[in-house]
Amino acid sequence: MYFYAVNLYIPAIRKKERVNEMNRKYPSRTKIPVGILGATGSVGQKFVQLLSGHPWFEVKVLAASHRSAGKPYRDVVNWLQNTPLPDEIGNLIVQSANADLPVQVLFSALDAKVAETVEKTFADKGHIVISNARNHRFHPQVPLLIPEVNPDHLAALKTQPFGQGKIVTNPNCSTTGMVIALKPLMDAFGLEKIHVVTMQALSGAGYPGVSSLDALDNVIPYISGEEEKMEREPKKLLGRWDGEHFVEAPLTISASCNRVPVLEGHLESVSVKLAKPVNKEAVREAWLNFKSIPQKLNLPSAPSRPIHYFEQEHLPQPRLQRNLENGMAVSVGRLRSCAILDYKFTVLSHNTIRGAAGGAILNAELMVAKGMIK
Amino acid sequence: MYFYAVNLYIPAIRKKERVNEMNRKYPSRTKIPVGILGATGSVGQKFVQLLSGHPWFEVKVLAASHRSAGKPYRDVVNWLQNTPLPDEIGNLIVQSANADLPVQVLFSALDAKVAETVEKTFADKGHIVISNARNHRFHPQVPLLIPEVNPDHLAALKTQPFGQGKIVTNPNCSTTGMVIALKPLMDAFGLEKIHVVTMQALSGAGYPGVSSLDALDNVIPYISGEEEKMEREPKKLLGRWDGEHFVEAPLTISASCNRVPVLEGHLESVSVKLAKPVNKEAVREAWLNFKSIPQKLNLPSAPSRPIHYFEQEHLPQPRLQRNLENGMAVSVGRLRSCAILDYKFTVLSHNTIRGAAGGAILNAELMVAKGMIK
Amino acid sequence: MYFYAVNLYIPAIRKKERVNEMNRKYPSRTKIPVGILGATGSVGQKFVQLLSGHPWFEVKVLAASHRSAGKPYRDVVNWLQNTPLPDEIGNLIVQSANADLPVQVLFSALDAKVAETVEKTFADKGHIVISNARNHRFHPQVPLLIPEVNPDHLAALKTQPFGQGKIVTNPNCSTTGMVIALKPLMDAFGLEKIHVVTMQALSGAGYPGVSSLDALDNVIPYISGEEEKMEREPKKLLGRWDGEHFVEAPLTISASCNRVPVLEGHLESVSVKLAKPVNKEAVREAWLNFKSIPQKLNLPSAPSRPIHYFEQEHLPQPRLQRNLENGMAVSVGRLRSCAILDYKFTVLSHNTIRGAAGGAILNAELMVAKGMIK
Amino acid sequence: MYFYAVNLYIPAIRKKERVNEMNRKYPSRTKIPVGILGATGSVGQKFVQLLSGHPWFEVKVLAASHRSAGKPYRDVVNWLQNTPLPDEIGNLIVQSANADLPVQVLFSALDAKVAETVEKTFADKGHIVISNARNHRFHPQVPLLIPEVNPDHLAALKTQPFGQGKIVTNPNCSTTGMVIALKPLMDAFGLEKIHVVTMQALSGAGYPGVSSLDALDNVIPYISGEEEKMEREPKKLLGRWDGEHFVEAPLTISASCNRVPVLEGHLESVSVKLAKPVNKEAVREAWLNFKSIPQKLNLPSAPSRPIHYFEQEHLPQPRLQRNLENGMAVSVGRLRSCAILDYKFTVLSHNTIRGAAGGAILNAELMVAKGMIK
Repeated sequence: MYFYAVNLYIPAIRKKERVNEMNRKYPSRTKIPVGILGATGSVGQKFVQLLSGHPWFEVKVLAASHRSAGKPYRDVVNWLQNTPLPDEIGNLIVQSANADLPVQVLFSALDAKVAETVEKTFADKGHIVISNARNHRFHPQVPLLIPEVNPDHLAALKTQPFGQGKIVTNPNCSTTGMVIALKPLMDAFGLEKIHVVTMQALSGAGYPGVSSLDALDNVIPYISGEEEKMEREPKKLLGRWDGEHFVEAPLTISASCNRVPVLEGHLESVSVKLAKPVNKEAVREAWLNFKSIPQKLNLPSAPSRPIHYFEQEHLPQPRLQRNLENGMAVSVGRLRSCAILDYKFTVLSHNTIRGAAGGAILNAELMVAKGMIK
Repeated sequence: MYFYAVNLYIPAIRKKERVNEMNRKYPSRTKIPVGILGATGSVGQKFVQLLSGHPWFEVKVLAASHRSAGKPYRDVVNWLQNTPLPDEIGNLIVQSANADLPVQVLFSALDAKVAETVEKTFADKGHIVISNARNHRFHPQVPLLIPEVNPDHLAALKTQPFGQGKIVTNPNCSTTGMVIALKPLMDAFGLEKIHVVTMQALSGAGYPGVSSLDALDNVIPYISGEEEKMEREPKKLLGRWDGEHFVEAPLTISASCNRVPVLEGHLESVSVKLAKPVNKEAVREAWLNFKSIPQKLNLPSAPSRPIHYFEQEHLPQPRLQRNLENGMAVSVGRLRSCAILDYKFTVLSHNTIRGAAGGAILNAELMVAKGMIK
Repeated sequence: MYFYAVNLYIPAIRKKERVNEMNRKYPSRTKIPVGILGATGSVGQKFVQLLSGHPWFEVKVLAASHRSAGKPYRDVVNWLQNTPLPDEIGNLIVQSANADLPVQVLFSALDAKVAETVEKTFADKGHIVISNARNHRFHPQVPLLIPEVNPDHLAALKTQPFGQGKIVTNPNCSTTGMVIALKPLMDAFGLEKIHVVTMQALSGAGYPGVSSLDALDNVIPYISGEEEKMEREPKKLLGRWDGEHFVEAPLTISASCNRVPVLEGHLESVSVKLAKPVNKEAVREAWLNFKSIPQKLNLPSAPSRPIHYFEQEHLPQPRLQRNLENGMAVSVGRLRSCAILDYKFTVLSHNTIRGAAGGAILNAELMVAKGMIK
Repeated sequence: MYFYAVNLYIPAIRKKERVNEMNRKYPSRTKIPVGILGATGSVGQKFVQLLSGHPWFEVKVLAASHRSAGKPYRDVVNWLQNTPLPDEIGNLIVQSANADLPVQVLFSALDAKVAETVEKTFADKGHIVISNARNHRFHPQVPLLIPEVNPDHLAALKTQPFGQGKIVTNPNCSTTGMVIALKPLMDAFGLEKIHVVTMQALSGAGYPGVSSLDALDNVIPYISGEEEKMEREPKKLLGRWDGEHFVEAPLTISASCNRVPVLEGHLESVSVKLAKPVNKEAVREAWLNFKSIPQKLNLPSAPSRPIHYFEQEHLPQPRLQRNLENGMAVSVGRLRSCAILDYKFTVLSHNTIRGAAGGAILNAELMVAKGMIK
């Protein structure tokens, strides 16, 4: 069993040592300067937190609305992360997301209301936009990318109409964990039907997001637009790029989305119908053996194992497993027969790390490894 | 729109007036003395709370383990209800659940570990045992009863082998709400398949039950024995009594049970396949028009409408609707097509009232109305 | 011990019976028509909920911002109470809080940003404004009123400069419970110093109020303006009206206010220095024997006992006692010596009932009983 | 501003690298083998988690009750930490806490019911017992130790009556954070009176500890024995060892302890009377400049700064600051005048790290640095 502890006792390692450690591991690279669009929001903050000390990327630009522009980041951000705001980031002067920005690579944490236009504008100006927004996910030349699932979809980039610029998107937070869990089943057995009921964390709604008066001692059985995303995105993710078009996988998907009083970590009860009969052990093996491109390329943010399967019937649980492999691993458990479809099981993934900022960073790392970001 | 407020401002009505009110409504009856088995536990306390001021029943006997026997109830109970312990109940001397008890009607809140033997012993001695325990639910002559669903199953009582005594059971808390919601669909359209994912309240695990360290900021994707109950009990409830046997309904059921940080109220995401094609409006109408025997008999604990259908897409929610009609109504909402089965929707019911003590009391009221309890 | 259950099993009593019950108790009165200013907000909704079925008052006017004006209340309110919106209220057409309103008595749930001007305007037009807003609490002729504490302060009304109109205010939610608990100590022993640390419920911040991301698994050690209110309001409440001026009680008060993840019910750890040495039993007796004007007048919203003292060392708790006497009683417990001041104890009160809407309604009831509202 | 991130994105650093890192920092030392008494409980698990990868100590022995003895740790522990159980620890065979144990240094996470005898027995056999239990805290030769507060109290060890064996204790979790915050005030200005109201996390009650039905949407205003500990322990901690006896500091302390629905992190509202008049800035400076022996010795678990002072009025908060410096730093904020004593402020500390296992480990590290453990 591997071991890496998230909340671990490492009092003697301070930042300098950690960065040295990373530099030893990724020694020869000069860091790539990057920017964050929508840097003050909750996903933007997560980008700041996750990119701090990154071995390949260095945050040089923070962009936000014109209200924040011109001020130090520390003065305009309502920092809500449970790690201190790094000094060198807090001192950066926020720029307007409408200005020209002096870095090629931009991580977009923009709100969907403005992302469509702003992201396209930056791509047209030659930027590589790694977006967490939903707007371009179904653009016919934009990959909807999970590096463990469909890394070959990056081939679509060369057909994009943005000149030197590119746009790459990652899926909705509730889609990501489920599709990673489904990928080895799709590969090994084929997949026909998916029935999923989600119990999603509050952080998925952003900040301030859900009122505490709605959240405590309660479940809200509705999340606007979420079921539509979960019923559509897996078809593109598990589909293929034929050189000119994305061809959707022929899946039947039914999703019901609920908000539960959990801070981080989406838990999902999933039932699937496979394309051929297999025994339970084969399903379990498919998960246990799953490794993919990010693991082979040893990408900095890649979990050593994308899927952790738990034998204990009370796992996975959001509070216990969401931070596994720094929030980048997906946890699966409770595999058993389904009386209606073939199998049912429980999937957990960290919605603001693997399902948002961390997923986008992994996308960018894959592009670096493939020579698409230099 | 009907209206009855649970937490309502009625400061001027004190107990005496309320009991007077009930007596005006049910004027001629001398109250039936009843006992509670397992009176100190959380379900037992709920029986005490719900039976206080009941127009037909009067709690005369509280029975518990021998450790509590011989002491006033107030001294041995760790009263956890949010209404004060009634004085006349607190002063009752607790009796041993192994002793002879001087009332015919016994509500059983016994733990499953002891219920099997103790309930049978009391039935053999001529008592009518209205049980919330799971042990006799599948006894071939014991009704598993929801008055709105299968009141005719009481006919099985006359075949019971307990002499003058009888045993009647109510279903598991997670089954009850779902089956009430399914009953009008079964009647109108026939029912073939049910896929249900539950988000169940903490109170369902009793007291102390779930540790707060497991509950806060978390979901536990497993409840021991719960999925088995949900996959089996609806078949008996929606089946029929043929005069000699219970004939199960031929249903295919898949249940996944989760525990969420909610105090009271089980929420369930349900998908169904009906026996014939119907449009959405017909389903909605089936719920809106549903009334059953308890409503026709005007039983004291019967909700005026067993099912409340909500058009708002964010309802029902545990905190907002669980107390509807004093916790005896089932709330349904979010009816929409299911890509895999026919329709999906959300069901909410109060697990310790409708799903436990309140359900058992309604069973007893039906028996009074039918002349089976005098 | 008295008994009235809030969440009680009274399935057979429907609204009509309840109103009949009230009418029997307060038979001869024609109901006084009243309005609610700020009716769509959370305190406004609480007024609607609490006034439904009130024996003396009948809600005839709902006023809100001009955005809501002209539409049925049910279409503009985001109803968040756990009791259904009464039909007759839901159908009322909302009026603008700037319009002329056809009822004399107005309950104000206005936001402090607009309350100052709007309330004064209505008073100048001859309305009796019963306000929950903070703006006029320290006006030199406006009573800051808790009927059990300083009913004689109503004498100030005749000096008010608003013509026929009047303004009466109730204190901040965190002040109310504490001052009711302090009143019998003040009367019996004199009071010199008060040290209070609060653990306040989320509902005190209104809706949407505190973000769930700030609330869950957390405490916020700051509530804007709250400590200032708690250090000032008790001096007016426990002071006296000398015929021309309010004379503040010479108290030294230190308050620290914290927000905890509780939905309703402010819990407070209080230490006091009394003016003379007394033993613990005398303090306890002062609370147990405390009755005041509202109890003597048998006002509809008055709790039978304003203060409930609990001997059990783990009580009072928000979830168990906040609804006591329909949320109008204050719970006190854990009386013990304080090493620094004289005694310390725990106080609990329902912040949106006794500390807001319910407190205001009791103020109005006192004015009816005194002939100041007709 | 310093920076060390707890939940940080360090996906590429796996355990081997981290241990290498530590070995580079503390290069020449052969690790000291240690054991954990009460290893399966929640504090015991925290010792396991925190000692994994420790540069000086290596867990070689896990001892628990005879029920667990003889089995691999992974089979008997209900692992509740949010980091995976390290493989090399999971495979250790648990030994009985009554057996002879082959390591000199024992961390004790024993329950107070058995700690008194078991710890003394091990000390008598020559073991160095670093205890988190309360039993020997007031033994006249046993230091009650916080390395930043009273490191010189270790001098008492040489007077202990246990032969080669020693016992060192750390204070109660609610005491630790407060006393660290008070230490610089004591040193600079003198301290006379302390009034503290706590809002303590659920994890302080162990596992299963507080029932979720008591915890959610609630505060419990009582923790058995806690106020007594808080009113007594600071006197020993802030007192002195005169060569033969511990001389208590002449402090007047009043504590009120509450349990709030927070998983980790005790928040405390503290008021103090100082021995001489000082301005607010001087108090703030005392905290900002505070460093002590563990920082000077660069102990592995020592926070770089024991106290972090926050200027923002809404900080510190449990969820945001509890993990600061791996849970070993104390957070202070909201300094302001107190109308009754001199100053009041808010203190936060991680109760199961700084307040329990982490505090004990720091005690042991100090003993290593002083040559008392070899």
